[in-house]
Amino acid sequence: MQGRAEATRRSLLEAAAQLFEERGYAGTSISDISTLSGRTSGAIYFHYAGKEKLALAVMEELFATWPALIGRHREADIPALEKLVALSFSVARAFRDDVVVRGGSRLWAERKSVDASLPSPFEGWIETVVGLLEEARQEGALGPSVVPRKAGNAVVYAFFGLHTVSDALDGREHIEERLHDLWLLLLPALQSKPRPGPLLDRAARGGSRAGAAATAR
Amino acid sequence: MQGRAEATRRSLLEAAAQLFEERGYAGTSISDISTLSGRTSGAIYFHYAGKEKLALAVMEELFATWPALIGRHREADIPALEKLVALSFSVARAFRDDVVVRGGSRLWAERKSVDASLPSPFEGWIETVVGLLEEARQEGALGPSVVPRKAGNAVVYAFFGLHTVSDALDGREHIEERLHDLWLLLLPALQSKPRPGPLLDRAARGGSRAGAAATAR
Repeated sequence: MQGRAEATRRSLLEAAAQLFEERGYAGTSISDISTLSGRTSGAIYFHYAGKEKLALAVMEELFATWPALIGRHREADIPALEKLVALSFSVARAFRDDVVVRGGSRLWAERKSVDASLPSPFEGWIETVVGLLEEARQEGALGPSVVPRKAGNAVVYAFFGLHTVSDALDGREHIEERLHDLWLLLLPALQSKPRPGPLLDRAARGGSRAGAAATAR
Repeated sequence: MQGRAEATRRSLLEAAAQLFEERGYAGTSISDISTLSGRTSGAIYFHYAGKEKLALAVMEELFATWPALIGRHREADIPALEKLVALSFSVARAFRDDVVVRGGSRLWAERKSVDASLPSPFEGWIETVVGLLEEARQEGALGPSVVPRKAGNAVVYAFFGLHTVSDALDGREHIEERLHDLWLLLLPALQSKPRPGPLLDRAARGGSRAGAAATAR
């Protein structure tokens, strides 16, 4: 019985995320979610108590995606800068391909118009990136003038800006190429021995495998 | 008579921008705009034919802010990289301080929920930044491995991400410090002789003067 309830909750969550992404929070009704999921309005209210709670659940699911993905990348037996680049490719692919991440992302962009109180993702990402840059410093891989906290902030800005611009230009279709170009600029600024090519090629492939595992759920 | 009509249009535009920024498009009514501006609903419909046209006018005003600002920075008798950094400080200050830019910016972030069709700003910014980097290449100021088009894209991502993150973290209060840190990472990646400090200090001051002129209207 618990398995069936879980399947119902999941199908409602995915239907809601898809509609939030396509139509926004205000443009999505309980009736739309019922139609797309093939579940009754009663089931929606039973499991989520309404649209606001569903939006919050999509956002929570979006935020819950990252710790496991971050953990898997951090544990990999590769240099810290390569972990960082591989992680960025995994996240970019999740934003392009995962319906819950995409729906949550639009809700977050429109968060000022959603009644639910939503967490801000940036502090956590900044800590993750700063931690990886400090690890790179320990490995001697970071240029002497790089300050991990300042550089970590800048990397997070650049990465989130990439998402905004890529979404506006072509619905993120070319996000992997754009991310590649971004790292071609940023890596030489971070590395003690500027040579971004090999690391970038390996990390882009590694990110692909880890990302596939992440979105397989 | 034309002066008075212009003053009325301007006061409606600024009141609408302030409300769009605070409450979003869906959360703002013609009645709110009438109350804040002290003008009648009839005046709003006479000048703008409704909320959708007002939103479009705020967006158009946002987009119209940049060509004059860009032109003034491009004409300055300073190196191209310094023009680019000074321009970025002017734009950051406009996003922090100018009510029409702020209101237009929120409308743009929520553009999928606004009925009016809105232009995308990124192509224009990418061309501007690529143009300045090509000028820097002519001046011999760009590192040999820097490709202006790719680096220009990356600079635009980083700059817009800075806005998103800075807005989410503290309503852009610390955007100038954050922009300073961003350039400390990016400038050495761009420069043929990495030495960001003096250029950055001059450009931040220069941006301040040009920005004040820009928002004086």
